[in-house]
Amino acid sequence: MGRWEPNARGRLANAALELYNEHGFEQTTVMEIAKRAGLTERTFFRHYADKREVLFAGAPAMRELLVAAVTDAPPSAPPVDALAAGLDAVCEMFVGRREYARKRQAVILANAELHERELVKLATLSAAVAEALRRRGVTEPAASLTAEAGIAVFKIGFKRWVAEAEEREMTQVMRETLDQLKNLTTSD
Amino acid sequence: MGRWEPNARGRLANAALELYNEHGFEQTTVMEIAKRAGLTERTFFRHYADKREVLFAGAPAMRELLVAAVTDAPPSAPPVDALAAGLDAVCEMFVGRREYARKRQAVILANAELHERELVKLATLSAAVAEALRRRGVTEPAASLTAEAGIAVFKIGFKRWVAEAEEREMTQVMRETLDQLKNLTTSD
Repeated sequence: MGRWEPNARGRLANAALELYNEHGFEQTTVMEIAKRAGLTERTFFRHYADKREVLFAGAPAMRELLVAAVTDAPPSAPPVDALAAGLDAVCEMFVGRREYARKRQAVILANAELHERELVKLATLSAAVAEALRRRGVTEPAASLTAEAGIAVFKIGFKRWVAEAEEREMTQVMRETLDQLKNLTTSD
Repeated sequence: MGRWEPNARGRLANAALELYNEHGFEQTTVMEIAKRAGLTERTFFRHYADKREVLFAGAPAMRELLVAAVTDAPPSAPPVDALAAGLDAVCEMFVGRREYARKRQAVILANAELHERELVKLATLSAAVAEALRRRGVTEPAASLTAEAGIAVFKIGFKRWVAEAEEREMTQVMRETLDQLKNLTTSD
């Protein structure tokens, strides 16, 4: 039971996503996830607190990447450029993970409770970006507005990136989405 | 019990907000709300499904106002102007209600579950605005981006409007916040 399992965490996450898509999130048990991954329930609980956490385990890393990139942008960079650097950093995290992201998105959208949790996650990311911008000397409401706009771009860019027909890299889709936001707000 | 009570709905809402602020949302019972309002529990349940609904009962009217104003904006208006019309319409709804809004905001921010519900409400408003923009012929992702940006402006504008030191009307604060978003995204 206590032995080291190669990539147990990743195997559990993949097994969980498969099952959530096949049978629904509600209907899937931790026992089934562990079995599908060829591991024990005990191993599951060494990696995740519960079956919901499998879907949100990446959030802290994402927040750290976002905040670090916003913080490390050149001091002279305007808020929107620091934000763009943050979005680029997050895109790195998703390289090679489009299929996984597609499956996760399908599970989230099929379950109201998970969708709420996702909204909370995004609000937390927005607050973290706003805080990072304020530490750069950006005043309010500019810091919060930039952060909220950034999360809007992330939400919509992500949705486009996981769409069936989309083949471009996430960075490209995200940058295009940010540019579209800029154009929208200058159309009058 | 069945008799008509003048402005029972408003009295119940005010009583509820007072109690939520004094004792906390969790600790307040429907019985106490009814008593504070000088009404019966039965009257409470004729107006609200539960004590949470008191805080979110205005959401459908807000959505209708937003959607109607976006829909009725001049056909030639760019998406961001249709959005601005929607925000103006919502501001109308809050005229004379700053004290109430301040109390409500304090209750929402003090309770994680209510805060989540508020995020869901805002996401629903965003989806409704995006849909109204698509019916105007706005394509994706412009429709969703404009809607998300609009909700970001609403969130931040609202927070500013209810801040203790703020004395300007909501319309003015909201327009300024929208202008600030426009400036931010054009700063490079």
